[in-house]
Order: sequence, then structure tokens, then C-alpha cells
Amino acid sequence: MTESTTTTHPFDDALELERLSAGSYVGRTSAAYNNMVGPFGGLTAATLVRAVQLHPERLGDPISLTINFAGPVAEGEFEVVARPVRTNRSNQHWYLELSQNGEIVTTATALFGTRRRTWDDDEASPPAVPSPTDLDAGGFPEFIAWARNYDMRFASGQLSETESPNSATALWIRDTPPRPLDFASLTSMCDAFYPRVFQRRGKYVPAGTVTMTIHYFATADDLATQSEDFLLGTAQARRFHRGYFDQSAELWGTDGVLLATSHQVVYYKD
Amino acid sequence: MTESTTTTHPFDDALELERLSAGSYVGRTSAAYNNMVGPFGGLTAATLVRAVQLHPERLGDPISLTINFAGPVAEGEFEVVARPVRTNRSNQHWYLELSQNGEIVTTATALFGTRRRTWDDDEASPPAVPSPTDLDAGGFPEFIAWARNYDMRFASGQLSETESPNSATALWIRDTPPRPLDFASLTSMCDAFYPRVFQRRGKYVPAGTVTMTIHYFATADDLATQSEDFLLGTAQARRFHRGYFDQSAELWGTDGVLLATSHQVVYYKD
Repeated sequence: MTESTTTTHPFDDALELERLSAGSYVGRTSAAYNNMVGPFGGLTAATLVRAVQLHPERLGDPISLTINFAGPVAEGEFEVVARPVRTNRSNQHWYLELSQNGEIVTTATALFGTRRRTWDDDEASPPAVPSPTDLDAGGFPEFIAWARNYDMRFASGQLSETESPNSATALWIRDTPPRPLDFASLTSMCDAFYPRVFQRRGKYVPAGTVTMTIHYFATADDLATQSEDFLLGTAQARRFHRGYFDQSAELWGTDGVLLATSHQVVYYKD
Repeated sequence: MTESTTTTHPFDDALELERLSAGSYVGRTSAAYNNMVGPFGGLTAATLVRAVQLHPERLGDPISLTINFAGPVAEGEFEVVARPVRTNRSNQHWYLELSQNGEIVTTATALFGTRRRTWDDDEASPPAVPSPTDLDAGGFPEFIAWARNYDMRFASGQLSETESPNSATALWIRDTPPRPLDFASLTSMCDAFYPRVFQRRGKYVPAGTVTMTIHYFATADDLATQSEDFLLGTAQARRFHRGYFDQSAELWGTDGVLLATSHQVVYYKD
């Protein structure tokens, strides 16, 4: 038996919020989760989920989240305000703002709720891909700090300097070091797909997510089943049009159940 | 040449907002656009787009909208507040609330923006279906008031009493009487797909959209090209799980370009 230590996971360090009052918090950007410019959007989204989870009036677990990246987040402190807008019997609607120096840099709405047993069906199914042990780790350049916190195994769509006829990608992903999946880390992984325009153009172009919507299917039981194992992620764009494109992503559990989807709009120029 | 009349389209009547101050309006539910319970969500979404469009500080056209159906909307008056949260050089983030008697019944965030010419690509393509003239009109029962304002021609997924192995549907849709497409009507049509659980179960069960996100690809030029012609809509669910399922929809122009997508979460029980 190994001795227990007090070391926390880098993701938990990055998520830390200091409570000012119910629904009002101070957080800090984390160098370990920086993107090319500013923090990794997945971490910002996870921080907003955490802000709701810490609220004393919170009801249930995430059903959906829409986060709008309204302006650049500078390195340093930020303030988060999470307000329960309406509480029903089995669900609850939230509005959130993240600000720096009094200026709003991120907005979000979230729906939390409780679930019940009823007729269930998994209509969609995951794509057939090699298992993670049969794929090489890697796929992101070393200078993308946040990506170093994930063990990624690309089945297709690894970043390359070749133009691709389509934007589809499939990869296995989990935290490194491994960490049991929770709603915050599932949220973060929903944004782990680099802008699809890079894949189509075979090069970096200016691009950034402006809005991302996550739909959660996972229950607490599903998260416990998944634990530290790899998730299978897929993403693809539909249309690149006049400076904005979409990308829809699916995150599948190791046992083939759909845990979450995300749908983004990304600004780009070329 | 026919004489001009002052008759407005029912959709424009239903969308009407009375301005109280910049970003603050009073509207009224419209019997012609009622759903089984309360107003058609597509009309509510269109009303919020209209509220932004009427704001003197509005910049550009819709890029995305997330609307959260937080509680039932009663017949009668409602108040809409639209607040520009952050304005950048080429885009603008909005937060909106719709209230009745001081209680919030709907929340939304919207992104508006201007577009620029850049590298463009239509990666996805519409499904092959018969032309609208080769399909019969109909598909919704007569008691769904809002559906009577649309000419719908189902290629697949017409409401029936047969359980279906999948939830996919494809239909042509336009306003009746015809009306040139604009951002409000495109928004409304994004919600024209009845809950996918009805199709899977071959029966009505309690179900209602709790959140819907629309991504707009259409520019004003695309709308002008489309004008009064049929749009092709497709929708499908991925997973029905413990009381919530998703449905993603695509709306295609007659010339095969993707005009908008919508991604919903729907509450259901069975």
C-alpha cells in the first residue's frame, strides 16, 4: 500500500474558486491550462460548472451548458457570478458571468436537474476505431500547454500540415495523470477538439471558439463506471462560411455509451 | 398588377413587440402559434431574435442563439428584456429574459456579428429526398395550431402510431401563406421538429424542449436567395436517457446550402 499524499491533481488546482458569497467567487487562470492565447476554453467551461456545483441552492447535475467566449481572458484573477434564475421541481436554470476588472469576458446559461428512470434508448453508436493501446500518444504540438494534461490517442485527424478533404476526427482522451471522470472534467474534454479549420487547411489560421453548447447524458453512475478510463471523442464541421464555422463533437464512454455532446461556433480567418 | 393591401402575415402579427425603452418590450402570445401547451417555442425564439434586432445598439446579424425554456408561458402579455453584454469590433453578445408577472419564464444568450469573405467550404451536404412537389402536404395533426402556419412535406418521419427504429426525419417546410425567409422565420423553423420520442414510441408522451441552440450560417444574401421557397429540414436524436434526450436538426436551402442548425435537449417521460 502506498502512502497517501496531499498532492492534488493539476485539474483540481486549476479549477479552484474562492467563495466571496453565495454564487460569487474569485478564480485565477492556470499556466498549466493555457491555450495559444489565454486559457483553454474547456477549463473555463468547467470552472463555470464548478461555480454552480458550489452554490448552496444547486439542484441536481448538469443537463446542458452554453458558454459564450465574449472577450479575451487575461492571465490572473477573474470573478465568477452564478445566479439561479429559476428553480422548478426537477430542474434549475442558471445565468453566469465571468469578469475581469469589471468587464464581462464570458457569459453562460446552464440547466441542472435530477433524472428519473423511464424508457431509455441509445440510438446513436460510437465509430469503430482501434483501441487506445494500439494507438500512439500525441497529436498536439508541445507548445499547447493544456494539451499536455491529456493523454490523447488519435485514430484520425491528428494535427498535420496536410490539407484534409474533411474535418472529421476520432481520438481517445483522458487526463494525465489519470483522474476519475466528473462533470467538470467531462465539460473540459468537450472542448478538446482543435479548430476544424486547421485540419481542412493543413495549417494554423486565426481561429477561436465564440460559443459552445454542451448536452450531458452522463449520470453520476455513468461517471463512476467510466472512472479514469479513456473516452472516445469525435468531431466534425458542417460548414465554413464567411468567418464562422460549426463543429459538433461526441464523447463516448469506454463501454460505448454517449456521455456528452458539444456544438461550437468558431470564428476564423484565412 | 394587384392592389397593395395592409394585411400583414400572421407570423409578423405574432412577432409584434411594443417598445417600452431600449431593449425592453411588451409582447403577447398568439393563438395562431399555440402548441399543445403554451406557445410554439420556435415563435418564442424568433421573438427574442426580433428583440435584439429592434435594439438601437444591435451589431450585425445572428450567429448563434441559445434559448432556455425555464417555465410555462401563459396566454397573454409578456415582457422581454434584451441587454448587450459585450460589444466587440465585429460581434456582440446578448443576454435576454422573457418574464410574466415578474417571473422569468425564458432566458437566452445570443451572438450577433458581421461576416467577412474568407476561405469557405460546404463540408456537409443535404440528404437526397423527393422534391416537395412530389410529396403530400401534412404530417401534423390539426389540433397543433402553429403547424397550420407551415406547409410541410414529409419525406420521412411523419407523425404516426407506429414505433420507429430510429428518430430520423426529413421534410420540406415553408410558411403558409408564403413569406420571404428572414432571420426570425429561420429561427422559428429550427424548432419545427416534433419531439423525436413520439416517433420512436409511436405515441404522444409528455415531452417539452428545455433548451435549444441555433447556429446560423445564412447571411442576408442567402435569405434573399431562398425567399419564399421550401427549406429542407432534417432531425435526429442520439440518446434518450433518464428523462432527457437530444435532437439535432439541419435546415437546408433549396440550392443545397446549410442555412442553420439547431441542437435541443428535450424533457420526456414515458
